[in-house]
Amino acid sequence: MSKLPVIEMFGPTIQGEGAVIGVKTMFVRTYGCDYRCGWCDSAFTWDGSAKDKVRMLAPEEIMAELNALAGDNFGCVTISGGNPALIGEGMGTFIRMLHERGIQAAIETQGSRWQDWFYDVDVLTVSPKPPSSGMKTNWEMLDGIMDKMKTQGSSAHSLKVVVFDDEDYQYAKSIHRRYPDVPLYLQPGNENVTEEGDISARLLGRLEWLFKQVIADPGMNKARVLPQLHALIWHNKRGK
Amino acid sequence: MSKLPVIEMFGPTIQGEGAVIGVKTMFVRTYGCDYRCGWCDSAFTWDGSAKDKVRMLAPEEIMAELNALAGDNFGCVTISGGNPALIGEGMGTFIRMLHERGIQAAIETQGSRWQDWFYDVDVLTVSPKPPSSGMKTNWEMLDGIMDKMKTQGSSAHSLKVVVFDDEDYQYAKSIHRRYPDVPLYLQPGNENVTEEGDISARLLGRLEWLFKQVIADPGMNKARVLPQLHALIWHNKRGK
Repeated sequence: MSKLPVIEMFGPTIQGEGAVIGVKTMFVRTYGCDYRCGWCDSAFTWDGSAKDKVRMLAPEEIMAELNALAGDNFGCVTISGGNPALIGEGMGTFIRMLHERGIQAAIETQGSRWQDWFYDVDVLTVSPKPPSSGMKTNWEMLDGIMDKMKTQGSSAHSLKVVVFDDEDYQYAKSIHRRYPDVPLYLQPGNENVTEEGDISARLLGRLEWLFKQVIADPGMNKARVLPQLHALIWHNKRGK
Repeated sequence: MSKLPVIEMFGPTIQGEGAVIGVKTMFVRTYGCDYRCGWCDSAFTWDGSAKDKVRMLAPEEIMAELNALAGDNFGCVTISGGNPALIGEGMGTFIRMLHERGIQAAIETQGSRWQDWFYDVDVLTVSPKPPSSGMKTNWEMLDGIMDKMKTQGSSAHSLKVVVFDDEDYQYAKSIHRRYPDVPLYLQPGNENVTEEGDISARLLGRLEWLFKQVIADPGMNKARVLPQLHALIWHNKRGK
């Protein structure tokens, strides 16, 4: 059976962002990414600094560890990375295993790769990266993913764009115009992911800035602006 | 045509809480409430202190004022109170008027009264009040409302409980057990709705407390915990 490269598992905690903001969830973080975003808050998943922590685990081994961590105290597992869409059939098996136990699977990916198991994800967040990341969007690939997901109905997937500056905001608008029927979440970027101490005032300032952009913009009447609640409460600490 | 008692209209701003958290919206606040919650953050809607500001407006007059305030810069109108469910056919007319213009209607009510126009509300938030409010829940009425709304499918309505303390939390759990299939939002209470200045640290402390309650509780795997974003950013200022 296909194994998955897992770099960390933790929880239960509360999902702090995006379509399932506020829901209790376990986190499974996979290793490896095809992107190198300048402001990545999980660069240890691809920069080699934590490579010795990666374990190749079978889906049932992941399941067993989640159960050991939390017993029956969760109903949702969030799979993040890195880019979980680099992983093939092992992920599909893991998602089916979650469903057999009545557990929801939430996955975030940047939309640079397709996997057939996307169809089975309960909450698929496609998060294309704006100009400030330094990455280039593969529009052909993203169009293909959004086309396929359309068949799933809009509750199954949403878009999320992290916004650091005006250029990112324009990028988010272009995403919204391109896929107008897909729920769009805007999230202010965290400009310093290594700063220690209480960063909530800085983050709330950026949330207010993004609120004001959207409030003033008739092209964004349906977009949703959300913060990262975990960062407001637990700041830049990992594993929360 | 039936007129509605309106005490304030403002926006566009961002909805800070509940099922449509993060969405741009106009606010219409109606006058009058059958409750007298001790910690009400909008007591001016029922305590008489702002009675001279109440205007009886026809649905088309409300619509015209919203258009004057915001033009085409909104896609959602949130109707709050007070208790908007005290209002009969005029509200139904207003909601139909919003729909004719492609605008979503979001309404919050405590679940103490039924109106047939509940069926037409795009996002109906039923927010029964916990013990700290000093109010007693009419369970027969609430059961009746939840029974009727069931026919609308779960995306049309949700429950929200404000939680100040352990007793409120137990009340929220009893609500969740009673209506297990209805999405439940938990929201930490704002213990001082008149405090001036930056109250975000206090509010985030209460959000963390509520996160921890839910994280530790296998009976709350599906509940969602959300703050009041507007209060984090704009504190206790009104009309934001």
